Amino acid sequence: MSVTSQAGPSASTVSAIKEKARRLSILSMMSTTAAGSGHPTSCMSAAELMAGIFFYAMKFDPKNPNSPDDDRFVLSKGHAAPVLYAALAEAGVFPPSRVMTLREFSSELEGHPTPRIPGVDAATGSLGQGLSVAAGLAIGARLDKSPTRVYVLLGDGEMAEGQIWEAAEFAGHYKLDNLTVIADVNALGQSDPTMYQHDMEIYRRKFEAEGFAAEVIDGHDVPSVLAALDRAKATKDRPQAILARTIKGHGFKEVAGKQHWHGKPFSKEQLAEAIKELGGPIDVPPDPGKSYERKSLPKPPDFPAPAAPEYEVGKPVATREAYGFALKRLGAVNPHIVALSGDVKNSTFSEIFQNAYPDHFYQGYIAEQNLVSAAVGLAARGKVPFADTFACFLSRAFDNVRMAAISRANINLCGSHCGVSIGEDGPSQMALEDIASFRAIHSSAVLYPSDAMSAERLTEAMARRPGINYLRTSRPKTRILYSTDERFPIPGFKVPCQSVQDEVTVIGAGITLHEALKAADQLKSEGISIRVIDLYCVKPIDGKALAEQLNATNGKLVTVEDHWPEGGVGEAVLSALTQAGVAPSKYKMLAVRDMPHSGKPDELIDAFGISARHIMDAVREIA
Amino acid sequence: MSVTSQAGPSASTVSAIKEKARRLSILSMMSTTAAGSGHPTSCMSAAELMAGIFFYAMKFDPKNPNSPDDDRFVLSKGHAAPVLYAALAEAGVFPPSRVMTLREFSSELEGHPTPRIPGVDAATGSLGQGLSVAAGLAIGARLDKSPTRVYVLLGDGEMAEGQIWEAAEFAGHYKLDNLTVIADVNALGQSDPTMYQHDMEIYRRKFEAEGFAAEVIDGHDVPSVLAALDRAKATKDRPQAILARTIKGHGFKEVAGKQHWHGKPFSKEQLAEAIKELGGPIDVPPDPGKSYERKSLPKPPDFPAPAAPEYEVGKPVATREAYGFALKRLGAVNPHIVALSGDVKNSTFSEIFQNAYPDHFYQGYIAEQNLVSAAVGLAARGKVPFADTFACFLSRAFDNVRMAAISRANINLCGSHCGVSIGEDGPSQMALEDIASFRAIHSSAVLYPSDAMSAERLTEAMARRPGINYLRTSRPKTRILYSTDERFPIPGFKVPCQSVQDEVTVIGAGITLHEALKAADQLKSEGISIRVIDLYCVKPIDGKALAEQLNATNGKLVTVEDHWPEGGVGEAVLSALTQAGVAPSKYKMLAVRDMPHSGKPDELIDAFGISARHIMDAVREIA
Repeated sequence: MSVTSQAGPSASTVSAIKEKARRLSILSMMSTTAAGSGHPTSCMSAAELMAGIFFYAMKFDPKNPNSPDDDRFVLSKGHAAPVLYAALAEAGVFPPSRVMTLREFSSELEGHPTPRIPGVDAATGSLGQGLSVAAGLAIGARLDKSPTRVYVLLGDGEMAEGQIWEAAEFAGHYKLDNLTVIADVNALGQSDPTMYQHDMEIYRRKFEAEGFAAEVIDGHDVPSVLAALDRAKATKDRPQAILARTIKGHGFKEVAGKQHWHGKPFSKEQLAEAIKELGGPIDVPPDPGKSYERKSLPKPPDFPAPAAPEYEVGKPVATREAYGFALKRLGAVNPHIVALSGDVKNSTFSEIFQNAYPDHFYQGYIAEQNLVSAAVGLAARGKVPFADTFACFLSRAFDNVRMAAISRANINLCGSHCGVSIGEDGPSQMALEDIASFRAIHSSAVLYPSDAMSAERLTEAMARRPGINYLRTSRPKTRILYSTDERFPIPGFKVPCQSVQDEVTVIGAGITLHEALKAADQLKSEGISIRVIDLYCVKPIDGKALAEQLNATNGKLVTVEDHWPEGGVGEAVLSALTQAGVAPSKYKMLAVRDMPHSGKPDELIDAFGISARHIMDAVREIA
Repeated sequence: MSVTSQAGPSASTVSAIKEKARRLSILSMMSTTAAGSGHPTSCMSAAELMAGIFFYAMKFDPKNPNSPDDDRFVLSKGHAAPVLYAALAEAGVFPPSRVMTLREFSSELEGHPTPRIPGVDAATGSLGQGLSVAAGLAIGARLDKSPTRVYVLLGDGEMAEGQIWEAAEFAGHYKLDNLTVIADVNALGQSDPTMYQHDMEIYRRKFEAEGFAAEVIDGHDVPSVLAALDRAKATKDRPQAILARTIKGHGFKEVAGKQHWHGKPFSKEQLAEAIKELGGPIDVPPDPGKSYERKSLPKPPDFPAPAAPEYEVGKPVATREAYGFALKRLGAVNPHIVALSGDVKNSTFSEIFQNAYPDHFYQGYIAEQNLVSAAVGLAARGKVPFADTFACFLSRAFDNVRMAAISRANINLCGSHCGVSIGEDGPSQMALEDIASFRAIHSSAVLYPSDAMSAERLTEAMARRPGINYLRTSRPKTRILYSTDERFPIPGFKVPCQSVQDEVTVIGAGITLHEALKAADQLKSEGISIRVIDLYCVKPIDGKALAEQLNATNGKLVTVEDHWPEGGVGEAVLSALTQAGVAPSKYKMLAVRDMPHSGKPDELIDAFGISARHIMDAVREIA
């Protein structure tokens, strides 16, 4: 698939690539016109670049284009999906006629790329994320000592996204010389010209400042494109950036270089004219054929059971610290694990893993969007990424998590310092919305351990579970509740306190589970028994099993969480019970309702309505 | 408060500023030691910078430090809050003894700054957001033709955040020459040295590439600091960046320039030694005094009722287009409105406002984090910002919205293209989690109109309502349901279809409201009456009023939403009903449960379980 020569590409190679570019443009226009939607002008600016990448530079097997031995390509400007599909078709991954099913209900060739499609590692379409994914793929290749290269195509509109620069500095800092960025600088955004338009030198300087070998070329001159790709491949110790000056809608006079053609397919008449200007029709057989959807997507690789955690019941250990110990135990039996942290490894304790396995730890610095999307790239290469920061800062990467789910990625995220229980740092550092946001992510599990034993066991479980796994850890030390032989299935919950006389069921998690146990003790002396449930798994929930518990207390329920009332433990429980056909007979939802501020953890837990005192009040009200 | 001179500052000025810097360092150390937590070393690297900014460059009235006539300061590196509080105290906003209440439960001087504190415009503490806020303040000043300047202090760790560069390019592009960035480059992050450490030239080049006048100085040399501030003030047509080389923990040998002192207060012994090294104690009276919490925070300014929207019932108009028309009507009566768009003004229709009021519209380009935080800055200056992008891309700014709530900001966000009903673009462009995420934001209202009339009326309401207002608009055209005299209170809902024989209550919103009305029509022919509720306000919800409706159908309920099941309309309704003491007797929750893909809108609505057909099935099951 690739032809390189010390003397540069031959005239016949150049000619062949030009013809490929022509075909890519035409297929992009044909497929979007057939679909009645899509972004042909965004594809046409990239035609020569895509042709050079796919048919000159990249080395891959069209029968197995997601193989770890293949070079990888990420289409960061995901709306140019048609030109990617055209390239995959021209490369032989599926027939060109398949491209004509673009955007149809039953086609795997969606409006924006997803990993349902062979050759695609991660979903794109939310701009600015692809360079991070590419960096993750590049790190994965490096860890595997694989010679494969990663190519990523950016648009210029998307270079306004800060994440592009997070990814660039990350790639530059880690000297990812197996990573080549190609930027399709066509000067026109969706609604206005871009900020820098064709001031190519600004882009070159920006990438150079991040440690890239950066050059500017004419993106429609095939010899220049191929020479630049050759130079990139020969560059050591630095990632490379080829800034290509291009024309949006290149090749069709009516639209070339004109604003207002973003995302507009051509009419049949325009298509005919454009094909004429582009040198005449190409032959695309009418039969769309079968689906080429990938039969199976990556799953986390299996691994032997690690050594057991060693804790004494009753001893105080923070769940955030347990996370670090668990990663270390996992690292001993699972060589695929890669941990990344957003400059808080000493707070989230992933530094315990770093100290044991320094080559498998990457400092992500204060750049959460890049942290999560790089994890997606790592996962696509079969790594088992664990990325951590404070839970509230994962909200900075919510779109990245959303796209990770569309990517069917298997990533593990740990958010520490949840809730008001962090104390004096105050609300900017307190996650109070993360249970809600992570529940609203497709394929997610939301895990919220109350003690270090369950935290460690759940971290182990994350390494096995496909999808988006989120672990919510707490800052304060809490006492060990569970012994080594306890298991924590997903879904599942524990009932650390129960009797046949229980009058009210109290469901807590994390810090509030301990508050509930305190409340249980004190209420006992008043002659009131409560059943306490540790909802260590907030999503998914086995509604039927929970309903059985609730039945034992005649439907009387209190939920208590270090989280806002919306979308958290309370709403998750209500929803699960209701869908199991059961409703509480009496219900009090305890949650943080007012905006918190600084204070000691215990002061805040009490002032904001989720302490043992409030639980007891609620129980007395409905018992 | 400011002393400038053509010849540079006098020796006595330099001496006075040095003493201020000394006092700021000491107060920062004293307050964090007293609190037992906080970030003294991060304060000490900024002492000379803060002294220069507050006591040489800035012009403000300590009795009214949030006045629009004052220069503004944003502490982007929010964990250095103690040094900000010390500066405000030294400037006379409150007594130095107040600073000693840092981080206490009852103190307004929280661990990270919030607008509870005089002189603070926006909450910081989640890094990388302050430059965007400052840009918003600068634009507000420009719109007011005010000569005030905006100063923002960045840390170097936070310059890894992509948002810093979104803000920088935005400020450079709009030539905000009333904006001065001062970067405290102390080379040490929380857990590791920063990426660039003291390679000052990289930072200078990066800011220069964004269009700033950028220079490097020794951040502890007071004459250099003051001269740089003078040069910044004299610079026209470009924002300015002063990159200051500093030492973390400067002034105290034991910690100066050493890793592992981030976020660690000094012991009493260390404090005594540090004070000695810094030239001896300062006098801080013991009485902490009363609170200096701001008595009132900005509210959106009042304005006369705009002209009414003109729609014919039955006509098809997309709610996204109605948003644009509403902004234009509002612009005619409310001069404070500023609209910003993330390069999608032609899709969200804010371009209708831009065409009418071009000076009040800012192209935000593809940079959603900056879009939202700049809106926070605008709001702090009394503007009424309306920022828009696709609803799914607002997830890119979730942390910014979270911080906006802590800032008690009054901002209005419009997210278009919600749900599967967008069609062929596919899931990367479909918001399915935004109701959940926006509900979990303190002070938010979540508005989801089903027709253009309600969309316009709700946009008007947003301009009056304090807090975070979120409007969810749809891509397809939908027919007008409501006439000009209808009102849409918050909270509230409409009942566009009801009778005394209603057997099931069906709650929908947006697209699904129309599906429910279709279902109602068809079920009528089968002899089944349903009550249809348009939940145009998903948060807040009047649970009692909703319960009354449900009672009329004996508790039989269907909810249907173009959203995931978690945290959306269904859970919001269940939660509101339950807290009103009512549970559905039978309940079906229709929502999007599987990962969607491309297709026509009607195909997708049906395939993913939320069409009229599914509503009818659900009704028949429980009727």
